[in-house]
Amino acid sequence: MKTLGIIGGMGPLATHDFYRKLIELTPAEEDAQHIPVVMVANTLIPNRIAAWEGRGPSPLPALITAARQCVEAGARVLAMPCNTAHFWFDDMALAVPQARFLHIADEALRACPSSGQAPIKLALTGTHATVAMGLYQSAAARLGMAVQWLDVAAVQADVTAAIASVKAGRIEQAAAEYQRALAVLQSAGAQAVVMGCTELPVISGAVHCELPLIDATDALARACIAACLDARTRTGHP
Amino acid sequence: MKTLGIIGGMGPLATHDFYRKLIELTPAEEDAQHIPVVMVANTLIPNRIAAWEGRGPSPLPALITAARQCVEAGARVLAMPCNTAHFWFDDMALAVPQARFLHIADEALRACPSSGQAPIKLALTGTHATVAMGLYQSAAARLGMAVQWLDVAAVQADVTAAIASVKAGRIEQAAAEYQRALAVLQSAGAQAVVMGCTELPVISGAVHCELPLIDATDALARACIAACLDARTRTGHP
Repeated sequence: MKTLGIIGGMGPLATHDFYRKLIELTPAEEDAQHIPVVMVANTLIPNRIAAWEGRGPSPLPALITAARQCVEAGARVLAMPCNTAHFWFDDMALAVPQARFLHIADEALRACPSSGQAPIKLALTGTHATVAMGLYQSAAARLGMAVQWLDVAAVQADVTAAIASVKAGRIEQAAAEYQRALAVLQSAGAQAVVMGCTELPVISGAVHCELPLIDATDALARACIAACLDARTRTGHP
Repeated sequence: MKTLGIIGGMGPLATHDFYRKLIELTPAEEDAQHIPVVMVANTLIPNRIAAWEGRGPSPLPALITAARQCVEAGARVLAMPCNTAHFWFDDMALAVPQARFLHIADEALRACPSSGQAPIKLALTGTHATVAMGLYQSAAARLGMAVQWLDVAAVQADVTAAIASVKAGRIEQAAAEYQRALAVLQSAGAQAVVMGCTELPVISGAVHCELPLIDATDALARACIAACLDARTRTGHP
């Protein structure tokens, strides 16, 4: 069993949601059957969106520090339950070659339903930075997955508002904002909606949507469990 | 703002419950207003009850390692959301003099209702080890608090079963087991019940009890927030 390092705090409720899914999805009857976890949730990491827009300092040094602290405390698998921060994924992965760093967009797209031969019509909901930086388009290319990405400009304001509401702990308000966006995306012909910001699955139970909602946090947790658990060769911590 | 170190994983759901309370009780509108957290949840720490009974290896070296890893990653306040592990609290505190280590039993008893002049009649629910090692009796003595502790032998089997059920993720079963114990304690004249095992608050919303239920996890989270937050002198991480 390998120790999982969680680079968290972006935001705290999203990290908490990831940790809960990790625990609930792990087949375990007692403490010692759960995955050992080291989490660094540095809530003071410079704002990712401001940095990406050139309005603030880069979070990369703090992200690398967090990843190294996880590895120094024994982590051999790393996950970062924040989509936008994956803009710096490659630089972080280079800094911690001792660990296997799982990419949230790759895992989310692997969890998408199949649409047969035709490209699947996906709507990506996330921060405007995540949408604009092509995080999921790049992941689809890596996976060789044919996707027709819907234009989400018309719903971005509601999605952005929902994310901010979750960060502030206003869950009901966030659900109402996200609900409006989902209705528009369904009308626009989406076959599935990717919750490509880890604040959004926090409210997925409070919205109603007939389309499949792809939970990137859930997909990342499942991939971490598969990477950390090996029942035949439990070698202890770290 | 100080970084909080969480020595967790005993068990994972209890750690998760503590982390959720920490986030929800922190007055914050955005990520950077939340408390930076380093968590070491080594689920492979030797079983605390077996060690206390002389049937297994001591968890102390692993507990000290976890505390040191938190401090090395910047923590200046430490908390351990596991009551039984507090048997080793003093030895751990000596090993990490750089950090302020908050004691869960002290914080829980500070959250107890007042009973005026007379000693309050408290029932302690927790592992049989926590009950027998006098963790809360010592804390009451430190705080100069007059307590008449009820004999809980008659309910220990149900409390122990409830704790094991939470660790296995069987929440409904755990609630039924704890409910039986609470009914007996109320009949026995308890004025309040201390949930002195961090698995128990996980199910406190699923049980019905007319007595105040003292949530040690909640009390510890509030004390950590007070110790870490200082709005006037935010000095960054670590």
